[in-house]
Amino acid sequence: MDSSTLTPFFTPRGIAVVGASQDSTKLGYGLARNLVHSNYPGAVHFVNPRGGSLLGRPVYSNMAQVPEPVDLAFLLIPAAMVPQALHDCGGRGLKAAVIGSGGFRETGPEGAALEEECLQIAQSYGMRLIGPNCIGLLDTHMPMNATFLPPPGPPPGDVAYLSHSGAICAAVIDWARGHDFGLSRLVSLGNQADVNETDMLAPAAADPFTRVINLYLEGIRDGRRFVKEASRVSRQKPVIALKVGRYASGQRAVASHTGALAGQESAYNAAFRRAGVIRAETSEEMFDWARALAWCPPPKGRAIAVLTNAGGAGVTAADALESNGMNLAALQENTCQALREVLPAAASLHNPVDMLASASPDQYARCLQILLDDTGVHGVMVIVPPPPMFAAGAVAKALIPIINISEKPVVVTLMGERLIQEAVEHFRSEHVVEYRFPERAASALAVLAKRAEYLQRAEQAPVQVNIPGIEQARAILKRYLDAGQGGAGAGWLAQEDALHLLEIYGIAIPPSGLARTPQEAVEKAQQMGLPVALKVASADISHKSDVGGVLLSLHDPEEIMLGFEQVVGNARRARPQAEILGVDVQRMIPAGQEVIIGAVQDAQFGPMVMFGSGGIEVEGLKDVAFALAPMTEEEAEYLLRSTWAGRKLAGFRSFLPVDRAAVLQALLRLAQIAADFPQLAEIEINPLRVLQEGAFALDVRARLAG
Amino acid sequence: MDSSTLTPFFTPRGIAVVGASQDSTKLGYGLARNLVHSNYPGAVHFVNPRGGSLLGRPVYSNMAQVPEPVDLAFLLIPAAMVPQALHDCGGRGLKAAVIGSGGFRETGPEGAALEEECLQIAQSYGMRLIGPNCIGLLDTHMPMNATFLPPPGPPPGDVAYLSHSGAICAAVIDWARGHDFGLSRLVSLGNQADVNETDMLAPAAADPFTRVINLYLEGIRDGRRFVKEASRVSRQKPVIALKVGRYASGQRAVASHTGALAGQESAYNAAFRRAGVIRAETSEEMFDWARALAWCPPPKGRAIAVLTNAGGAGVTAADALESNGMNLAALQENTCQALREVLPAAASLHNPVDMLASASPDQYARCLQILLDDTGVHGVMVIVPPPPMFAAGAVAKALIPIINISEKPVVVTLMGERLIQEAVEHFRSEHVVEYRFPERAASALAVLAKRAEYLQRAEQAPVQVNIPGIEQARAILKRYLDAGQGGAGAGWLAQEDALHLLEIYGIAIPPSGLARTPQEAVEKAQQMGLPVALKVASADISHKSDVGGVLLSLHDPEEIMLGFEQVVGNARRARPQAEILGVDVQRMIPAGQEVIIGAVQDAQFGPMVMFGSGGIEVEGLKDVAFALAPMTEEEAEYLLRSTWAGRKLAGFRSFLPVDRAAVLQALLRLAQIAADFPQLAEIEINPLRVLQEGAFALDVRARLAG
Repeated sequence: MDSSTLTPFFTPRGIAVVGASQDSTKLGYGLARNLVHSNYPGAVHFVNPRGGSLLGRPVYSNMAQVPEPVDLAFLLIPAAMVPQALHDCGGRGLKAAVIGSGGFRETGPEGAALEEECLQIAQSYGMRLIGPNCIGLLDTHMPMNATFLPPPGPPPGDVAYLSHSGAICAAVIDWARGHDFGLSRLVSLGNQADVNETDMLAPAAADPFTRVINLYLEGIRDGRRFVKEASRVSRQKPVIALKVGRYASGQRAVASHTGALAGQESAYNAAFRRAGVIRAETSEEMFDWARALAWCPPPKGRAIAVLTNAGGAGVTAADALESNGMNLAALQENTCQALREVLPAAASLHNPVDMLASASPDQYARCLQILLDDTGVHGVMVIVPPPPMFAAGAVAKALIPIINISEKPVVVTLMGERLIQEAVEHFRSEHVVEYRFPERAASALAVLAKRAEYLQRAEQAPVQVNIPGIEQARAILKRYLDAGQGGAGAGWLAQEDALHLLEIYGIAIPPSGLARTPQEAVEKAQQMGLPVALKVASADISHKSDVGGVLLSLHDPEEIMLGFEQVVGNARRARPQAEILGVDVQRMIPAGQEVIIGAVQDAQFGPMVMFGSGGIEVEGLKDVAFALAPMTEEEAEYLLRSTWAGRKLAGFRSFLPVDRAAVLQALLRLAQIAADFPQLAEIEINPLRVLQEGAFALDVRARLAG
Repeated sequence: MDSSTLTPFFTPRGIAVVGASQDSTKLGYGLARNLVHSNYPGAVHFVNPRGGSLLGRPVYSNMAQVPEPVDLAFLLIPAAMVPQALHDCGGRGLKAAVIGSGGFRETGPEGAALEEECLQIAQSYGMRLIGPNCIGLLDTHMPMNATFLPPPGPPPGDVAYLSHSGAICAAVIDWARGHDFGLSRLVSLGNQADVNETDMLAPAAADPFTRVINLYLEGIRDGRRFVKEASRVSRQKPVIALKVGRYASGQRAVASHTGALAGQESAYNAAFRRAGVIRAETSEEMFDWARALAWCPPPKGRAIAVLTNAGGAGVTAADALESNGMNLAALQENTCQALREVLPAAASLHNPVDMLASASPDQYARCLQILLDDTGVHGVMVIVPPPPMFAAGAVAKALIPIINISEKPVVVTLMGERLIQEAVEHFRSEHVVEYRFPERAASALAVLAKRAEYLQRAEQAPVQVNIPGIEQARAILKRYLDAGQGGAGAGWLAQEDALHLLEIYGIAIPPSGLARTPQEAVEKAQQMGLPVALKVASADISHKSDVGGVLLSLHDPEEIMLGFEQVVGNARRARPQAEILGVDVQRMIPAGQEVIIGAVQDAQFGPMVMFGSGGIEVEGLKDVAFALAPMTEEEAEYLLRSTWAGRKLAGFRSFLPVDRAAVLQALLRLAQIAADFPQLAEIEINPLRVLQEGAFALDVRARLAG
């Protein structure tokens, strides 16, 4: 739906509180109080069948009595009364409502039915809904506090916070207030009967006061729509997501809480990467990063200078920078010379620059300027422990003018608590980011670098490979799907069909063929050239080597005859129920590197491709990475870069360099298969053998969705 | 030296400040002021050649004039004057001095010589030294603040902080004060001319007010002594170490800062594990953990219950517990029943227990008691966001009596900042640990579990294997070392000597022998049985497969004759300078699992053993773990448990289970070699091939220190 339909939530000319209460322990009182006290510039109306007055205003007994202007209704009434109230709002011409009340989907099937009824009613009037089961929303710049949380609200700021959890909002507001950290707006999405996190991205991006968007997610319903929308928004403003429900037990808790389906973590990572969404692991990290992204310019690279008056803190900072993937800038000769003129002889002029404990505010300022002037320095971390000789506040005052006009990011580590409080206040009021510990400052610098790299990376469209034979591929799958209509046929593809599918998509396979008898195996082998491998042919056996169903390097007819019997015999003994068609005879491909590439359909995000170390150890080593399908070239490169299996393709010790380009092509083409055929629940090439020229799928398994 | 010589530092009857100053900007004033204002119960004396008075006390012009009692001198005078001052102190009969002044080893060779002179003087009087280049020490319970840091000092508490960095002490004190978090004592060790971190462990353990020892380390000089002392102390009190200088750049910074040699990280990890020292990655983590270890009872297992009034926070907690290696307790049926009686119908009774936003202080308390009564629950995390209906302070008051008498650990996540301040204060004053975010609470519970498991683990002595042939082994190495006297001979052992060494230590090797000619290779092969492998024999070539110097599976004399020429020819072409003795002929051992085991001598910690994935991929995959040598049985098990190479020995998919016990034996025996012969700089078995019965060293490299 058009995002302009959400406008009444953010710029309502008037708001009606349905369920406003005179009882100060009720949420309906809290909401009324917050709206009035937050200096909301629009009209505030109260509705309650009991009538009377509240906070010096009349309480109307029904919606019909409420005077203009009113664009938004906030319902805080028992769940059972919500449908009628929505009719009243819709009848009155309202196009937006927030349902704060609980008692819907989160309570079970009856509640879910009630929620569905509410959605139907709203849609019949063309009305958008936030909630139910939410604490509301607020905008600190308008200002408007349409939540029922205890006052005061958060200070005005740059960060929009969009949350699936209401309780976390209360904590975040209180935490933000305690740290003088402002929010631009906050939206509690509740059960998301209508409006969800994806809908809220565009309005947040359009808000001139919002510089960073923070998402607290318990799951995503329509993954591809989220990716599309977030990709667009993240080019304009940084988006940071904290996605909870990572682990099995966490996932259970989500299921019982909002009923959201939590997808696989690797799918979320792949989706966030595609969309340019930065994933935080903790709430603290999310807010640490948000401040840096809101207030710092992007660095041109990862080389950081550390300026300190204490060696120990410099070492900790150096450690933290390295472990966050940053590096210590090598200072230029003239930088060291300039520092030498400012600092005592015993100071350490190489990075970290240790000015010694005697460093004055003026020395801090001059050294910072010198470091910023070094073209090899992409950003600076300044460390200020409680200085033994000067007040930290004086150091802050000396640094701020330089940081304010710098085109490079400068983050400050103010170590301590009370003795540095004045400095903290100076820095915060000037939007200089400061942290208590070097580790957190380093993590902020790293996220700035990641963001800068993302923005520098040209936008790439997923690769669309032209597949002339696509109709043939469709025909293969159709055959299975048609057979499956009756119930049985769908499931694993026969090896030869799966290999044929790869061939159509331009993924090389070794010459091979099905032999139903030992004699036929010998004939096929002699046609394709020796040596050959034999693999038992059965759609019922997925891990063939587990059952002794594979023989390699057979050089002569006698070996092949015996091998056929052995492979079939082993498989029969191990899986007496399996239907065995014979043996796949395959030309042996010479030794090379082996990798695995596969694709699955994720419930949230659709087709995804996996790349990693081949063989049966892939599960043990977990050397794998995922990307959405179809895939960009950059993503294919990323899969190789982020795995050992991928890095060693370029050669390592006695591993010769092999055909990386062939692997990239195979990845893009397998991604295309997965994207073209969502009916394919999974398809896996294991191994893909990579030679100095070319890469061959030696084995493939493909399964249609049931 | 006897640790009783350190007593004067901690219970001095009187302290002399040498260099006391009337100038309030000088450190010699700060120290005098802190001693007087900290209510130190002993005598405080001031010494300065200018005489006069300070803070209402006389200033003596030299040490000789200082009246009794005086047990400790604190020198804050220019470096050049320190030697004479030490003579004065020693002559006066003092047995302890702190040198606060800088200008010693940290400034270069001249300073180092001066420091050495000071140490000599002190030792000539039997005097112990702290420093130079430190901020001093303090004890909050005596009380005594013998530092020159700006006041006030930290509040009294349970944590002893021993630090290689002075600047970090200032920040830590300020941070502790800001968080109402107490220290028992703090010692800044400076350059450690005499007293170091190891010396300070026993006094901290003996201090009745200290419950946890925190170490900030930039390196350790005498690693084995540290391990021995820390092992003893950590059985009594938890020891947490933050070791900085982890990365190359960090290590450079350490080198330029205190001259400490930073050892390899894997050695530190192995040493800390042996010693029962808990390693923190950040200062925040160290203090988060210290509070939990000081105030919580140890849990009996890793099953945790989460009690929350907000589902989202419960999910985050569940995630955090899982990612910290804890698990969510499965609640017993009667627990759920009891909860049902206390909570509304819509509450979630399985773990995390979500009481809903309406939860009252009384419900919090009753549910916590119910969870603690469940024998399957080993600890509880209680989550308190700013409660919408009740004050967080009231929740705290209701919970504290239950937590105080619980024998299971309870940690509290108080989400927010200002609205929860009253609750924070209640909890802190009652020594209940609270954190702002569930992630930190989960990390604290995990460290409690680790500590409990460490204490439950019986103390094991390293295994001492009896080696009847040890004199033979000694003779082999002596031959190389004697030859090395001239300069050349030391270095890589010939393969046959290295294999012989393993044989003597009871590590199985395949039958093999050196052949100098192709004919000899055939003869040896026929003696030991076919098939065989050929490997070029050269002490100058360490990675034989890199130069084409290895051939496998040779089945007949002709192959062996040709193979000999090929292997030697390849090696000659690749390494024309290498001295080639011929070819090692080795009986082929059947296929099995392959692992690597090796040992090195670490500069700080001496002999260490490595275990991991075999083959040439070990460097790429980094699937390795380390332990000190000789090794306990528990450590050998740990090496297997903590690597994929070790876990798969028990079988995985088509990998059959193999002889784990043989690997454990090989590890213990290789550790013994490394411990018996510190002259062996490195020795590596790669691969150790592990069969269903037995494990064979297929290749070994051993190098003597230069």
